[in-house]
Amino acid sequence: MNDTKINTIPQSAHSGYASLLSGFQSIQLGTVSAEQIPEVSYAPAVLTESREFYIHVSELSAHTANLRTSQKASVLLIEDEETCEQIFARKRVTFACDATEVERDSAEWKDAMERFGEKFGPIMNHLKTMQDFHLIRLQPKSGRLVVGFGQAFDVIGNQMDQLTHVRGIDGKGHRTATKQAANK
Amino acid sequence: MNDTKINTIPQSAHSGYASLLSGFQSIQLGTVSAEQIPEVSYAPAVLTESREFYIHVSELSAHTANLRTSQKASVLLIEDEETCEQIFARKRVTFACDATEVERDSAEWKDAMERFGEKFGPIMNHLKTMQDFHLIRLQPKSGRLVVGFGQAFDVIGNQMDQLTHVRGIDGKGHRTATKQAANK
Repeated sequence: MNDTKINTIPQSAHSGYASLLSGFQSIQLGTVSAEQIPEVSYAPAVLTESREFYIHVSELSAHTANLRTSQKASVLLIEDEETCEQIFARKRVTFACDATEVERDSAEWKDAMERFGEKFGPIMNHLKTMQDFHLIRLQPKSGRLVVGFGQAFDVIGNQMDQLTHVRGIDGKGHRTATKQAANK
Repeated sequence: MNDTKINTIPQSAHSGYASLLSGFQSIQLGTVSAEQIPEVSYAPAVLTESREFYIHVSELSAHTANLRTSQKASVLLIEDEETCEQIFARKRVTFACDATEVERDSAEWKDAMERFGEKFGPIMNHLKTMQDFHLIRLQPKSGRLVVGFGQAFDVIGNQMDQLTHVRGIDGKGHRTATKQAANK
């Protein structure tokens, strides 16, 4: 059953997903404070071959304390508003992530900093010396892709590389007034 | 002192703020679930003269339950990635908001739906009949504007119409390795 569903994923979903993953410079972030206050923000980011994100963020930003404390993040890649076809269905993918700080000067830190340097250029030579900045690894545990009206897919697999159909929450879709009246 | 600070706000901050407020079609949203899991998302939105946002969101989206349960939201207006001058300093404003559901068919609901219709056109005739959609008012309690490197301002006032300088957290700015070594 699952195989059948996977086989029916339209090519537009795969290409939309690939385009979101390859096209971004920065990610939108959802984090939560120790007092359960939500915070939305953004950060320049790199993505590895194994589908982990790295961000390099300052203590001057609220998200940094939130990430280090809660160790949870929600990550959104979304097409620009100006170029989207339909404002009510901007192409996007959201990942629920575990957030882990990477120790400064460790092998992983150096590797990530090389990736940042390759992607963003000389500005990183300065930023990586800043002591209020911390490198955070964001590891997706689940994902949701939306490429148009009614075209939502769950992203699964260890490397977030498979798509499956979503059919509403608990199998429900949108409800019109007529449908609701009929159900009473 | 406060007056002096307000008077020294550069015109570029005021114009950057005005541009973000007048230019958006949708907002980025940070919400939190009952289980303290953060969620980042987006929604088309309208802004009233008294600087309150309205969004019209479906139960099929996780943010809707989060907003109705926690009654808190973080709202981000941010310039598009493609057109930003500097990816490490995208112009943006973030508001910490109280979130309140507006009763369907109330005077406030009808007024908000008119605003949505004016802004987004005929699609709203359909969406407003959907029974899984809820109208949520997002009322900013505080704001933070960033218009460039080191150009951060707090947004204050009942109608989020005044800017004041921010000088880091607890008066601290970024820390270089040299400065940190010197402080030891």
